[in-house]
Amino acid sequence: MIPTHIEHIGIAVKDLATAIPYYEDVLGLKCYKIEEVADQKVRTAFFQVGQTKIELLEATAPDSPVAKFIEKKGEGIHHLAFAVQGIDEKLQEVAEKGIQLIDQKARKGAEGLDIAFLHPKSTFGVLTEFCEKRI
Amino acid sequence: MIPTHIEHIGIAVKDLATAIPYYEDVLGLKCYKIEEVADQKVRTAFFQVGQTKIELLEATAPDSPVAKFIEKKGEGIHHLAFAVQGIDEKLQEVAEKGIQLIDQKARKGAEGLDIAFLHPKSTFGVLTEFCEKRI
Repeated sequence: MIPTHIEHIGIAVKDLATAIPYYEDVLGLKCYKIEEVADQKVRTAFFQVGQTKIELLEATAPDSPVAKFIEKKGEGIHHLAFAVQGIDEKLQEVAEKGIQLIDQKARKGAEGLDIAFLHPKSTFGVLTEFCEKRI
Repeated sequence: MIPTHIEHIGIAVKDLATAIPYYEDVLGLKCYKIEEVADQKVRTAFFQVGQTKIELLEATAPDSPVAKFIEKKGEGIHHLAFAVQGIDEKLQEVAEKGIQLIDQKARKGAEGLDIAFLHPKSTFGVLTEFCEKRI
């Protein structure tokens, strides 16, 4: 099961209201949706560029993972998400190869996708997500 | 001039020889080329996933920008590259909008592309690259 494309790139920002104009007015992309993901304590803004989305992430609480990331590393690229098919089988496959999982099974993420994260300790520092659009 | 797609994602690693097997054996991607970019003091390994390449970056000298990045932040996502058309005009356009450029004009990068970087201070912490494949 090989990833088909980069589904999205998650970018941690302090404030969507100041970051969105950069992506729109400077890069020329269009924010097509803002969505709150309550269990991740983030508000997200989406932009499509080719096959891939840019997903800006703003913390909605001080204990949000995104708030902690910014505190430690500053604003910047937070995670990388691969589109896969058969997400639960793929998770099992990588776990059997010694990869540490954050999510043992897929759960619902933004945009109605099934998602799961791999731990960056196992993936050379890259917080890595698998995403699947199930019908 | 709107970017057409994510050309590549640059990922800083300490050692290509240990990181490549993760991308190949765990994620299922195929390393199709290793290339040294002397003026950036890096060796790069490329993987294609949909429209986008993963570009692993290993420093070839202690004063390589990639070595400094790892020293400061650890291994992880280093930069984000957008495919654009008319790269020099695009650079001028973003500079006029107040973006700080690292490269005032495009120069040759890996894979024969014309490339230029924007400063992360201007781009909400994301080291941002424009790339153009000119014939």
